[in-house]
Amino acid sequence: MRMVDLIEKKRDGLELSTEEITFVVNGYTDGSIPDYQVSALTMAIYFKGMTEKERADLTMAMVESGDQIDLSKIEGIKVDKHSTGGVGDTTTLVLGPLVAAVGVPIAKMSGRGLGHTGGTIDKLEAVKGFHVEIENEEFIELVNKNKIAVIGQSGNLTPADKKLYALRDVTATVDSIPLIASSIMSKKIAAGADAIVLDVKTGAGAFMKTLDDSRELAKAMVRIGNNVGRRTMAVISDMSQPLGYAIGNALEVKEAIDTLKGEGPEDLTELCLTLGSHMVYLAEKASSLEEARHKLDTAIKDGTALEKLKVFLSSQGGDASIVDNPSKMPQAKYTFELEAKEDGYIAEIVADEVGTAAMILGAGRATKESTIDLAVGLVLRKKIGDQVKQGESLVTIYSNFENVDEVKEKLYENIKISSQKIDAPILIHGEITE
Amino acid sequence: MRMVDLIEKKRDGLELSTEEITFVVNGYTDGSIPDYQVSALTMAIYFKGMTEKERADLTMAMVESGDQIDLSKIEGIKVDKHSTGGVGDTTTLVLGPLVAAVGVPIAKMSGRGLGHTGGTIDKLEAVKGFHVEIENEEFIELVNKNKIAVIGQSGNLTPADKKLYALRDVTATVDSIPLIASSIMSKKIAAGADAIVLDVKTGAGAFMKTLDDSRELAKAMVRIGNNVGRRTMAVISDMSQPLGYAIGNALEVKEAIDTLKGEGPEDLTELCLTLGSHMVYLAEKASSLEEARHKLDTAIKDGTALEKLKVFLSSQGGDASIVDNPSKMPQAKYTFELEAKEDGYIAEIVADEVGTAAMILGAGRATKESTIDLAVGLVLRKKIGDQVKQGESLVTIYSNFENVDEVKEKLYENIKISSQKIDAPILIHGEITE
Repeated sequence: MRMVDLIEKKRDGLELSTEEITFVVNGYTDGSIPDYQVSALTMAIYFKGMTEKERADLTMAMVESGDQIDLSKIEGIKVDKHSTGGVGDTTTLVLGPLVAAVGVPIAKMSGRGLGHTGGTIDKLEAVKGFHVEIENEEFIELVNKNKIAVIGQSGNLTPADKKLYALRDVTATVDSIPLIASSIMSKKIAAGADAIVLDVKTGAGAFMKTLDDSRELAKAMVRIGNNVGRRTMAVISDMSQPLGYAIGNALEVKEAIDTLKGEGPEDLTELCLTLGSHMVYLAEKASSLEEARHKLDTAIKDGTALEKLKVFLSSQGGDASIVDNPSKMPQAKYTFELEAKEDGYIAEIVADEVGTAAMILGAGRATKESTIDLAVGLVLRKKIGDQVKQGESLVTIYSNFENVDEVKEKLYENIKISSQKIDAPILIHGEITE
Repeated sequence: MRMVDLIEKKRDGLELSTEEITFVVNGYTDGSIPDYQVSALTMAIYFKGMTEKERADLTMAMVESGDQIDLSKIEGIKVDKHSTGGVGDTTTLVLGPLVAAVGVPIAKMSGRGLGHTGGTIDKLEAVKGFHVEIENEEFIELVNKNKIAVIGQSGNLTPADKKLYALRDVTATVDSIPLIASSIMSKKIAAGADAIVLDVKTGAGAFMKTLDDSRELAKAMVRIGNNVGRRTMAVISDMSQPLGYAIGNALEVKEAIDTLKGEGPEDLTELCLTLGSHMVYLAEKASSLEEARHKLDTAIKDGTALEKLKVFLSSQGGDASIVDNPSKMPQAKYTFELEAKEDGYIAEIVADEVGTAAMILGAGRATKESTIDLAVGLVLRKKIGDQVKQGESLVTIYSNFENVDEVKEKLYENIKISSQKIDAPILIHGEITE
């Protein structure tokens, strides 16, 4: 088999066989196929796409390019959730304890990462003592005992995907739905998921800006999952504005606690109940989505969800008393209110720019070397459609430095007020199950 | 400027500026832009094409990536001819002396190369003593004195093109008309041509199999040439069967001599007169194509063309007596006739396969390391449309080994006889001047 012939085949719009895709992925991983041939192939894929079969083959070849996590010793159906990224997305912190509380095993491998705020592990480090450096055996024991544990990323998972993503990033081939879908799905599958619930964001703050693109990506991922024997579904959720109110690490943990108490933001609560219902249903802990949702509602109301959070935190060395007393988490030295300059209705909150404002405060990493300030961030006081009066606070800024002019300027630029009444955006744009 | 942004721009179908193209070509030449970004760009070009301005910019950036031959000390307008490759193409050997005989300066830089038969230099080595290892000054003196000289390729001409071609060859991006056109034109311009006559082959034995593709390539090259200030035109000529009769090195020199005497194959003679007329006209040695053709006809009839060949050969150490006595060139030990198996009309002579048969005999190089046998090759006895009787010779095989079964088999497979009358193919499919 010659790589140049496979590039030509794809260039001409023909389907690559399972063998051919495996040849490419293995050859690229072991270095026998050079970058310059793979980048030509990915550009051909950008233009010619991939069939459903090719996408499934690419995903599994990337899964098999490295280690795969064995979760077979965990009882029950392991359901993983993945969000395609957004701003102020606290769903993971809420969903873990929430669905664990109704018996769904949550064996989460999580990472740090670049972005507006830290990854899940960074956020959890706002809880004193909490750590994810546990052995695999302990991890499995914890999940079997508590139904929830988080472990840091380890092992050599999907090296082909890592290498391919780095190459796509510098060759203008990131924006290819088959490649994005295969990349995400390969990571989930290698991490041991039996079933997968996808939260595909759509709108200005999401990777996919239009509903059509988001739906196409969701379908692509759902089909890959189902084609390779992992029950998969997707919810398409709004990211035209940040989700919830909090953007920042300790601030988001606090918001997750509120939500588990039933006192969280409406949109975050609704999205968590929607995603959670699907997770419970796929894990076969309820025979219908209605039953699943009822169970989750009950877990919030009777306090078992909140209790599950405490057990989860303390089992991994964390100070669970922060749940009842969130002020024990890192606190910013200064707070500032961003006052509305005029009366009206909130028309727009540009999610990614607001996220960047949080990053300027220190809530996220711009480069791998950046350190995160867990205390700082933003709490929105208004969301799209809310009425506002001049002088009212739009955002509370939590900062460890006194001069926040740059942050304020960015926020003013990206929170737009209209004199006309504006409807709140639809939160759930659809569900894709096949 | 970031290469990834330029790839994205081209991917999205936008035009790259002169500055951007120069950035890419210079960066690739000096190694600061890696192969994997350039291959992604060339694949994007494959799909999105290049505008006329981009093609001219790419050509000139490649010209300027290395040395440029200075022919300014040669009197007159230096017209170069380029053929896009074919089988049994003896036009260069004929045209050089022919147009030199009417005063057009021919300062030819020529090479060896892979293919069915050798390059022009290989062919000329069938003439004992002939050599192209001459100094630049001597070369220029010879052209000024005799109007014709050939020198071996030297210097660092169009390194960007060499690097780019090697990359395209392994990334399935050879078949891109803007890239092919820029590559060919950059080499001609760097070699010092003031004006260029292109012989674009079309048909089964040519790089471009269809007339549409050939016409598109011809137009692309003519526009590049004229856009960068080199008067350029193209003739589209037939390569559905080999040109002339001879395929082999000494055999083709012999055929060139015959043609310069006015005794050559009809198609080769006609194509040389057509291309030659344009060369003479562009060199301003005639004020019309008719006048140019008349001068060339005369040079053949009165012997000055043949005389020019003798002067050319002897001036570079060659034994000019071969012109009157071609049997002094290397002769094959054995000849075999390929006898027709049936009566009928020649319907097809698959040019590239017949060329491969000649290469099997040793007439060409399969790899850079192969040595050429100057004596061997094929002489067609019939061409498409000719009537043939069973037992008549279709081809004479000149070989230095006794067993030519493989060659015969290949020829039988690729020379098809029909019971129905067949028309000879049209030789000249068109001319492109703008």
